[in-house]
Amino acid sequence: MASNGHASVLNRDAFRQAVVNTLERRLFYVPSFKIYGGVAGLYDYGPPGCAVKSNVLAFWRQHFVLEENMLEVDCPCVTAEIVLKASGHVDKFTDLMVKDEKTGTCYRADHLLKDFCKEKLEKDANITADKAAELKHILAVLDDLSAEELGGKIKEYGIVAPDTKNPLSDPYPFNLMFQTSIGPSGLSPGFMRPETAQGIFVNFKDLYYYNGNKLPFAAAQIGQAFRNEISPRQGLLRVREFTLAEIEHFVDPDDKSHPKFSEVSSLEFLMFPREIQVSGQPAKVIRLGEAVSKGIVNNETLGFFIGRVYLFLVSLGIDKDRLRFRQHLANEMAHYAADCWDAEIECSYGWIECVGIADRSAYDLRAHTDKSGVALVAHEKFSEPREVEKLVIAPVKKELGLAFKGDQRMVCEALEVMSENEALEMKANLESKGEVEFRVCTLEKDVTIKKNMVTISKEKKKEHQRVFTPSVIEPSFGIGRIIYCLYEHSFYTRPSKTGDEQLNVFRFPPLVAPIKCTVFPLVQNQEYEEVAKDIAQRLTAAGISYKIDMTGTSIGKRYARTDELGVPFAITVDSTSSVTIRERDSKVQIRVGVQEVASVVKEVTEGHSTWNDMLSKYHTPAAVDEE
Amino acid sequence: MASNGHASVLNRDAFRQAVVNTLERRLFYVPSFKIYGGVAGLYDYGPPGCAVKSNVLAFWRQHFVLEENMLEVDCPCVTAEIVLKASGHVDKFTDLMVKDEKTGTCYRADHLLKDFCKEKLEKDANITADKAAELKHILAVLDDLSAEELGGKIKEYGIVAPDTKNPLSDPYPFNLMFQTSIGPSGLSPGFMRPETAQGIFVNFKDLYYYNGNKLPFAAAQIGQAFRNEISPRQGLLRVREFTLAEIEHFVDPDDKSHPKFSEVSSLEFLMFPREIQVSGQPAKVIRLGEAVSKGIVNNETLGFFIGRVYLFLVSLGIDKDRLRFRQHLANEMAHYAADCWDAEIECSYGWIECVGIADRSAYDLRAHTDKSGVALVAHEKFSEPREVEKLVIAPVKKELGLAFKGDQRMVCEALEVMSENEALEMKANLESKGEVEFRVCTLEKDVTIKKNMVTISKEKKKEHQRVFTPSVIEPSFGIGRIIYCLYEHSFYTRPSKTGDEQLNVFRFPPLVAPIKCTVFPLVQNQEYEEVAKDIAQRLTAAGISYKIDMTGTSIGKRYARTDELGVPFAITVDSTSSVTIRERDSKVQIRVGVQEVASVVKEVTEGHSTWNDMLSKYHTPAAVDEE
Repeated sequence: MASNGHASVLNRDAFRQAVVNTLERRLFYVPSFKIYGGVAGLYDYGPPGCAVKSNVLAFWRQHFVLEENMLEVDCPCVTAEIVLKASGHVDKFTDLMVKDEKTGTCYRADHLLKDFCKEKLEKDANITADKAAELKHILAVLDDLSAEELGGKIKEYGIVAPDTKNPLSDPYPFNLMFQTSIGPSGLSPGFMRPETAQGIFVNFKDLYYYNGNKLPFAAAQIGQAFRNEISPRQGLLRVREFTLAEIEHFVDPDDKSHPKFSEVSSLEFLMFPREIQVSGQPAKVIRLGEAVSKGIVNNETLGFFIGRVYLFLVSLGIDKDRLRFRQHLANEMAHYAADCWDAEIECSYGWIECVGIADRSAYDLRAHTDKSGVALVAHEKFSEPREVEKLVIAPVKKELGLAFKGDQRMVCEALEVMSENEALEMKANLESKGEVEFRVCTLEKDVTIKKNMVTISKEKKKEHQRVFTPSVIEPSFGIGRIIYCLYEHSFYTRPSKTGDEQLNVFRFPPLVAPIKCTVFPLVQNQEYEEVAKDIAQRLTAAGISYKIDMTGTSIGKRYARTDELGVPFAITVDSTSSVTIRERDSKVQIRVGVQEVASVVKEVTEGHSTWNDMLSKYHTPAAVDEE
Repeated sequence: MASNGHASVLNRDAFRQAVVNTLERRLFYVPSFKIYGGVAGLYDYGPPGCAVKSNVLAFWRQHFVLEENMLEVDCPCVTAEIVLKASGHVDKFTDLMVKDEKTGTCYRADHLLKDFCKEKLEKDANITADKAAELKHILAVLDDLSAEELGGKIKEYGIVAPDTKNPLSDPYPFNLMFQTSIGPSGLSPGFMRPETAQGIFVNFKDLYYYNGNKLPFAAAQIGQAFRNEISPRQGLLRVREFTLAEIEHFVDPDDKSHPKFSEVSSLEFLMFPREIQVSGQPAKVIRLGEAVSKGIVNNETLGFFIGRVYLFLVSLGIDKDRLRFRQHLANEMAHYAADCWDAEIECSYGWIECVGIADRSAYDLRAHTDKSGVALVAHEKFSEPREVEKLVIAPVKKELGLAFKGDQRMVCEALEVMSENEALEMKANLESKGEVEFRVCTLEKDVTIKKNMVTISKEKKKEHQRVFTPSVIEPSFGIGRIIYCLYEHSFYTRPSKTGDEQLNVFRFPPLVAPIKCTVFPLVQNQEYEEVAKDIAQRLTAAGISYKIDMTGTSIGKRYARTDELGVPFAITVDSTSSVTIRERDSKVQIRVGVQEVASVVKEVTEGHSTWNDMLSKYHTPAAVDEE
């Protein structure tokens, strides 16, 4: 999209402005604490936005939790420091920041460099081919630059603070977690969780037990997460507090097949595997079954979730032509990850990561096992005991004591934790040379190990079970980002009847629509208003949300108001026995009896019938949209 | 309950222990970060607890938001300091704390004094009648004691730190909000919100506009709230993070009638008005309509919400005999409140405040108007202009300037803000005496005002509208507390078939039950398992949560497991054409065709039919519970 040049940038900005204006004016969202000037990166969802969010979450629960029998949990946002020490967030959840050296205003170092490169490339007509290539390279590797490299480039290009033109400090890491203190003593640091996943990992042992000590199973959590962004941008896309919906699917690392993969294997959609990205080609449509069988997607379980995520997003109303699954490049993935795919949705800001689907292997459970000392493992009971060869390292404590005195314990422990390869190499060396130099990290020195100090052997043992750390496959959904992209994909304008203005419409599917229908008496009279109230009561009883509009405004204006909220059906009371139902996008109407109207709307909004079914049942060609 | 003496205290503790053991063992909840030793006052909801919570919240939305067409909003937890300055939380949301002078351990001062008094009263057989009366008096006025009074009593009684017996510091206020910092500069303090209400108040202007500038209307919010308790106690009842569901109903202060009050006016339940509490009598059953008409409850809107809260709690399964509505005593209420009632539920910890229903008058909107300068007001347009008599105070600036020089402005402003009574008194005095002494607070002195310096008159004016600050009636629900009380009210034990053990049962109504049904093949064989899977699929399609148990465990044990989770219906597959459905509490079974079973369970769990309807339709007396 960026390559379409200047004109399309303008169109894109104008389109975004039209969407955002409508969203703010109709209270889909507003800046939080607006009457006090707001706070960057914090937003309130007003009534329609809140309803859309609650519909999206309810569908997420139905589509994932209920459909897959997942174990849903609900953990606090306030999190003890030790949990986030173990997960690595305390040490590594940082962005590089630079400060305006005079005013102290903070900026993300990578954002400034990115803006500089982009602007130069877009606006500097005299740029040399070499320079352009250099800047493009920087944009490509931006995420990989160290603090020193970023600082070097900022100096080299003479980048200064955008608002004041003051010089900038060197980049330094800023931890993105909101910190607080638990209890009155000030001695227990806590953080607002940066993700919901850790709450599931620390409960693995109990959840595994709850699941009858069986794998695979998935746990899920919906909740708030927090990121103290240095300089929030892009409206709802980069905020300081957001709702995450995360799944942790625990699976045997030796068997990542999925019994229901066949249900999604014939889906075809835009995929953007690593090789295609590197070769410079665009994303292409691939059949999911083929992607897994060819090894493009690492395993069936990962593939299954990619398919389910695709179905989820498309059901919400995301345009499948602006949705792609992009595989992480090797340098993007954590060292422990087996494979990662992001569901990216294209909107006016470009391609936005909205769902991450990662095979994180055993990393998280191992990290918490190490820190807590509680074994977060699974057991596979063998139907018959199996004979296995096991390496046994037996330090001879007496000899070690004589040789190393006070260091004996450290040497002993170092011997015991040798890897299988190290131990076998030592065994060979001891047998051939009689002694060997051995590094003891905890002593920070080498010691000489002699043959009489340790026995290393392979023994055959009968085992009744296999004990292992499960792999975890994690689909993680940024709900606010999905909703924002959905707003852009659902928005369109059409001329009013008189043609003198453009009217805004959100084409939300009934599943997502904040309000399922509106009820209008055609004219202000008591009879029609009674009928409208009667219908309203029936709708409430059926659990269908509605808005009733008794104002004397013209019916066309009332339709326009309701279209702008994305309400799919408008019920107009124009008689006491039957009413019209008008569908938002086609503007076609059907005529239905007052007794039936609530159940017709319920059937269509809950997906038991389609609008077309209702059309063939009720449509009279005479019925026209009276806008 | 406390008056039942020592034996009942034991029973109460044993009962609570039985409930809590079951809840923790079945993962309704567990201490957060358990593998790291946990953190006081933070709990995770495991799968059944999370499902119960999500059912309670879904019902809350249906019962309040949808049924009353409320405007639901969703605001962040991270809150700017200025919002909570305006609301008073930064200055006043504190508890009095004492510190162990040697170890620094913190305690709530009132808790220590309360524990001391209670223990003395319960265990000291030699206590004099005078002393007992004194201690009882302290317990009664505990919430009103100042820091000095609390400190005095702690010294007088020689109360020391409970664990170490060390001396304690004087009490001092500790703010209960979790503090943090927004953005990287460290210059923008923020807090984790202590309630969700403020998010609604600051949005009043937009919400009023969204509602077509009409009163009354209600806004609602469900979300996390935070309280950095000094020393959390009582399990799920006093925690550091909890879910609140709050309603702010905005209403014209001159008309607090409610159009739907008649729908709840004939309800009768336990009420505990101020006068009855003061007279020492117990709570008594009062008809709601009578409570409002007699002025016991201040107004119809407050009464309407009391009735709706009653219906909500009873529908969840709260025992109506252990539910009472207690009016706040005069000294409990904030000075601005018109009337407050708490829905209190009796559990093993005593009577617990679970819902507060307060008429907070115009306090909150005024506070934010003052702080932000944005007028949070409503307008009543008159159909015809009305003639009103208005007091006009017109200072004569020239004369004031001659008399007071540089103080002229201060005097002028002081005259303009006089109340109507003050002004009329001044007018009378000026007319009779020609001059009057007048206090100017901003100058901290009296000045002499003469007749020529100010004109005070009553003028008739035509007004087209009335501008006023709405009153707010606030029902505020502590969801975790309601759920905990519900657990206690739903729990019972019954002997196993063999009579050798007591089995635990939660008698949750289907609305609340974490899982609606279980599916058991009677014996392990492939045919039955296929049928079980087929039924499971039909249940998923119908949106009914279930648990499938294919283990070969005895059917009695499987029933017991499911009863302990409060699952209302168990489907046992004992043929390929029809199956049995067993109701949890009666243990009665019906036989239903495989095709029908999902819709039968759906009908009963969604309340479209009762179990009795199904009994008369399907029950064959031959069917027995095979436990």
